[in-house]
Amino acid sequence: MKRLTPILLLMLTALTLHAEDGYRLWLRYDRLADDAARATYAAAVGRIELASPAAATSPTLAAAQQELTAGLLGLLGVTPEIRIVQTTGPVSQAPDGYQLHSSTPGTVLIGADSDLGVLYGAFALLRRIQTGQSLSALNVTSAPRVQRRILDHWDNLNGFIERGYAGFSLWKWFELPEVRDPRYCDYARACASLGLNGAALTNVNANALVLTPHYLAKVAALADEFRPYGIRVYLTARFSAPIEIGGLKTADPLDPAVAAWWRAKTDEIYRLIPDFGGYLVKANSEGQPGPQDYHRTHADGANLLADAVAPHGGIVLWRAFVYAAENTVDRVKQAYHEFTPLDGKFRDNVVVQIKNGPLDFMPREPFSPLFGAMPRTRLALELQITQEYLGCAIQLAYLAPLWKEVLDADTFAAGPGSTVARVTDGTLRHHDLSVIAGVANTGSDRNWTGHPLAQANWYAFGRLAWDHTLTAAAIADEWTKMTFGHDATTVATVSHLLLGSRETVVNYSMPLGLHHIMAEGHHYGPGPWVTHARADWSSNYYHQADAAGLGAARSANGSNAVGNYAPELAAVWGNPDTCPENLLLWFHHVSWDHKMRSGRPLWDELCLRYQQGVDEVRAMQREWDTLAGHLDTERFTHVQSLLRRQAQDAVIWRDACLLYFQTFSKRPLPAGVEPPAHDLEYYKSIKLRYVPGHPSDY
Amino acid sequence: MKRLTPILLLMLTALTLHAEDGYRLWLRYDRLADDAARATYAAAVGRIELASPAAATSPTLAAAQQELTAGLLGLLGVTPEIRIVQTTGPVSQAPDGYQLHSSTPGTVLIGADSDLGVLYGAFALLRRIQTGQSLSALNVTSAPRVQRRILDHWDNLNGFIERGYAGFSLWKWFELPEVRDPRYCDYARACASLGLNGAALTNVNANALVLTPHYLAKVAALADEFRPYGIRVYLTARFSAPIEIGGLKTADPLDPAVAAWWRAKTDEIYRLIPDFGGYLVKANSEGQPGPQDYHRTHADGANLLADAVAPHGGIVLWRAFVYAAENTVDRVKQAYHEFTPLDGKFRDNVVVQIKNGPLDFMPREPFSPLFGAMPRTRLALELQITQEYLGCAIQLAYLAPLWKEVLDADTFAAGPGSTVARVTDGTLRHHDLSVIAGVANTGSDRNWTGHPLAQANWYAFGRLAWDHTLTAAAIADEWTKMTFGHDATTVATVSHLLLGSRETVVNYSMPLGLHHIMAEGHHYGPGPWVTHARADWSSNYYHQADAAGLGAARSANGSNAVGNYAPELAAVWGNPDTCPENLLLWFHHVSWDHKMRSGRPLWDELCLRYQQGVDEVRAMQREWDTLAGHLDTERFTHVQSLLRRQAQDAVIWRDACLLYFQTFSKRPLPAGVEPPAHDLEYYKSIKLRYVPGHPSDY
Repeated sequence: MKRLTPILLLMLTALTLHAEDGYRLWLRYDRLADDAARATYAAAVGRIELASPAAATSPTLAAAQQELTAGLLGLLGVTPEIRIVQTTGPVSQAPDGYQLHSSTPGTVLIGADSDLGVLYGAFALLRRIQTGQSLSALNVTSAPRVQRRILDHWDNLNGFIERGYAGFSLWKWFELPEVRDPRYCDYARACASLGLNGAALTNVNANALVLTPHYLAKVAALADEFRPYGIRVYLTARFSAPIEIGGLKTADPLDPAVAAWWRAKTDEIYRLIPDFGGYLVKANSEGQPGPQDYHRTHADGANLLADAVAPHGGIVLWRAFVYAAENTVDRVKQAYHEFTPLDGKFRDNVVVQIKNGPLDFMPREPFSPLFGAMPRTRLALELQITQEYLGCAIQLAYLAPLWKEVLDADTFAAGPGSTVARVTDGTLRHHDLSVIAGVANTGSDRNWTGHPLAQANWYAFGRLAWDHTLTAAAIADEWTKMTFGHDATTVATVSHLLLGSRETVVNYSMPLGLHHIMAEGHHYGPGPWVTHARADWSSNYYHQADAAGLGAARSANGSNAVGNYAPELAAVWGNPDTCPENLLLWFHHVSWDHKMRSGRPLWDELCLRYQQGVDEVRAMQREWDTLAGHLDTERFTHVQSLLRRQAQDAVIWRDACLLYFQTFSKRPLPAGVEPPAHDLEYYKSIKLRYVPGHPSDY
Repeated sequence: MKRLTPILLLMLTALTLHAEDGYRLWLRYDRLADDAARATYAAAVGRIELASPAAATSPTLAAAQQELTAGLLGLLGVTPEIRIVQTTGPVSQAPDGYQLHSSTPGTVLIGADSDLGVLYGAFALLRRIQTGQSLSALNVTSAPRVQRRILDHWDNLNGFIERGYAGFSLWKWFELPEVRDPRYCDYARACASLGLNGAALTNVNANALVLTPHYLAKVAALADEFRPYGIRVYLTARFSAPIEIGGLKTADPLDPAVAAWWRAKTDEIYRLIPDFGGYLVKANSEGQPGPQDYHRTHADGANLLADAVAPHGGIVLWRAFVYAAENTVDRVKQAYHEFTPLDGKFRDNVVVQIKNGPLDFMPREPFSPLFGAMPRTRLALELQITQEYLGCAIQLAYLAPLWKEVLDADTFAAGPGSTVARVTDGTLRHHDLSVIAGVANTGSDRNWTGHPLAQANWYAFGRLAWDHTLTAAAIADEWTKMTFGHDATTVATVSHLLLGSRETVVNYSMPLGLHHIMAEGHHYGPGPWVTHARADWSSNYYHQADAAGLGAARSANGSNAVGNYAPELAAVWGNPDTCPENLLLWFHHVSWDHKMRSGRPLWDELCLRYQQGVDEVRAMQREWDTLAGHLDTERFTHVQSLLRRQAQDAVIWRDACLLYFQTFSKRPLPAGVEPPAHDLEYYKSIKLRYVPGHPSDY
């Protein structure tokens, strides 16, 4: 045997085989590289006092202690002395708020009015170190602005997640209750680190089986796993459950036997789960059963369940996402139409849960007018963390800017400053019960969210649920530092990519107020040509393209959906000359020659906006590529490949939509817009099968 | 604020938060604790020579080098010099065999006749260190006994795995080909570490869509990821694909247009995947289309595809698992009945793939008589790694003893010593093509196999595929050391638990030759009462319980299935007095009073055997509990909870079966058998829904 040249040693980074699997999320406690900073922090946290009224150990305080011990050992290499002490009076404005205080050098006090508040404070202290904030003269208080901060999981009992793009359900129903996946605890930790305190475990398209004793034992096991971290479980209640699993002939909410059944079922649940949060209900929408099946109102249905949970302190989250085939009202007016007459008719423990927009989680919508129209009803804001209409877990879309748009939107319902945020947190109407919900983007993928950067959306939802005054930029910066470390280039680049990403998706998919022109069913990619026997499942119901122009006529000379808003808004939005251009085609059918603020006609502006979206994805690719060597190969390569796919998808969106709209506009593509590679028929022929999260393929 | 007592420090083990997620499988390269051993090994591997005929770097040699570098750095803390050298002549009996040789102290030569052989040798060297074997005067050669060592994945394109109990498919079809999950590479590494060299990616209940260009691009991406590790991809071919995606009117195998379609399709595949392995086909079985739809034979169908792949060196794996509703032959005779007349009629590149038993992967079956009955046909052995009938990924069942039973079984087809192993490896009939296949138990769960100890089944299948002469005990010892380290108590205990576990499952579910008495559809738990319009889907078709006795009459005075075996076996098995008791009720309908070797009547023996199974699971629990503190909390707790569930399940099996059979035997439970907690109706009323892996629930 003859010797040949030696092989060069492989890069040492390749040796840490697949350590960066993303499982740890933002709870990464790797040793800080900066020796001086580490020493300073270590000196500051030599002793930690956990102060609560009970001042006795509890599973929640043990969790706080465990997190601090692990976190500080990892970050700083030290093991502080941790003591439990007693508070002498109220610490915070809200039960689970916390105080971080360093009156004595070397000692940090984490005080709260509940053990859960202490746990939140422990995570906050770790976050300060992870993000490089000073601990000197520490004196911080923080309290959640919304009481119930809930993740809604659209998980079926067979493991499929409707609109889930990161694998399948985290809840392993078959193994439960005996087998308890360690992941349950890590899920709860991650949620608690953000201040989330609820999880609705099951799909709003509900299955009554989860309310049977066989499954309730499993739910109770999950509740046990979550309890130390302050996560209460909620279940979706199928309205027809009294028939399906109760043996009754009716589910009529005014039938005494039905009410008795729900009371008994609810009592049974609370015996197993004393801190059960309550029911989440989708009724009389998209085929789900509901009180209207018995000619009763949503209030009748919600109050039925509310009376059952009330003795236990439970609540009912009744969704306002309702529409029906037989309803001929403009789809974006239907919830308003059905719910505003019921204002004041719901029990105090009912919260009407409203999607951020009047349609359905589009890349951009105006806020739902219901937020300004039900002063005597507790209203919850429902956001979608999973990217049903923003590219699944393939495309990068940091959603905090979208959510901030909604939260900061002014309903003018009680004068200027009546923001959706203040409606949601209850301060506007002085409600004593407040809820914010996010449809989760979690799944069984090792990194939880499929796209590594989609973890930022889970994070951002949790942080905004705690404090809606945080900015999208501050949250992005925080998350990036916690997730990728302190390399300045990485932090700046990732934050920059995140912040622009949602608008980029808007640009290449539904710019200028376009909406609901996606592919049918799975909702991935373009489908402006989709037609359906049901008008409001057809794209042209929404884009209304014709030879004259484009856009939905919803001003006073159309459906007058704009009339559902306060006069201050209706006046601005109802006029195409004053309507913000990013909502123009939502409210107005506009001539192809309509002069835009750029001076260009609508058609040219539309084309250039689609092109801009494509250009922006390509720029994102180039920007990401500059990070080579700045972070681990695994996440670098994964995001790189996802951006490559996104760039292809963006081109398809642009070409398909422009070719389709061109059949109406009859105008050429303006200079600067790349000509499509295929004809319209090609794009119409793309039939994707087995897109994740699409119920019909399972 | 008042100081209270300090909390005790948590155990340090709790601080390594969830590091033991099982993702690394047996490829764990943690630093050896024994300093002296480490130094000895480090001295032995200071230089490593990778010797192959090409003696040039390649992706496969790079993989070998990367594995050695990472492994030795991890295990020993050293980075050896690695050189590529040239072999001067053949090293091994088989192309991918390897030699490990240390002629010079401090230097290990890994020689092979192919780069893949070198990779296998690299894994073998690491395994020797992981399992504590000496490297001094190293001179080892090893070669695979079977050429094609394949994992069959029953994965659907929507991610669902039929009979998969460890999450969903590893193949993320929607993201492919752009996005390549790092897990693809880790899958290939794990397979290659065992010598596996093929993966059939799709369910045998096939979907023609995978043969369309859109999916073939995705398959090619997987093939690219696997190629450095020597894993070739195979696809399941839906026999009606020429109609479904080809636009033809027929799939008749003798139709020239059909043959042309398959040739063109196959050429297309090989253009994308030059090393494509070939097709795996389930035809005319359980509703799958096949050549019999056109009154052609299995040979006609197989040869059609064989001719298409032959020019590219591909093969066809044609499954012998065939049965049909209209067939009135004893179900366990059907494959024999259909296939033996075709012996000699298959092309040379067709391999008939036979499940180990004549029925369907039961906890215990005799071997399939086809292994002794088709001398002129290449025969593959198909084993089931996933535990369809042995408790999903809930119950512990180490399957190497089952597989060894089959491999070592003597068909007597060419005289004594004509084992199934020798039929499979081709030595008995001097065939030049040999295949062994295992239905994979892998899925998207973080630990790959759901049950942490079920990783041992993947491992054992791979090791036996390479060398069927290895013992189940040696493999268990190897796997345990690699997976749990060298703590003597842990190794002894885990190995002991593994080795007894399959017989325990037999005892509490289907002892004494009972079979096919499981619950309908999902197959989890007992269902001796299951009746179906189709006789051979009913349990009593198999157990034949009546007032007189129990067991299937398959001797000469029954269906004479025993006549499918060699006279040497038929004589022994055909007589209840000589038939091994563990197959008694497979071949004989026996009186309840039949005197067993223990001296007890059958009824008492049966009852005590079920009780024994329950007792054994409880003993397993106690034995596992002795490991507290010997291994990480995460795996310890997980297995503990799984055993708890298994103990409950075993009781249900025992009670349900004994109460059911008691309705025929009319005899009391003998002393030593615990009385059932419920009546028979209770057990019959258990209706599990959403059991993983069950197609009807998806």
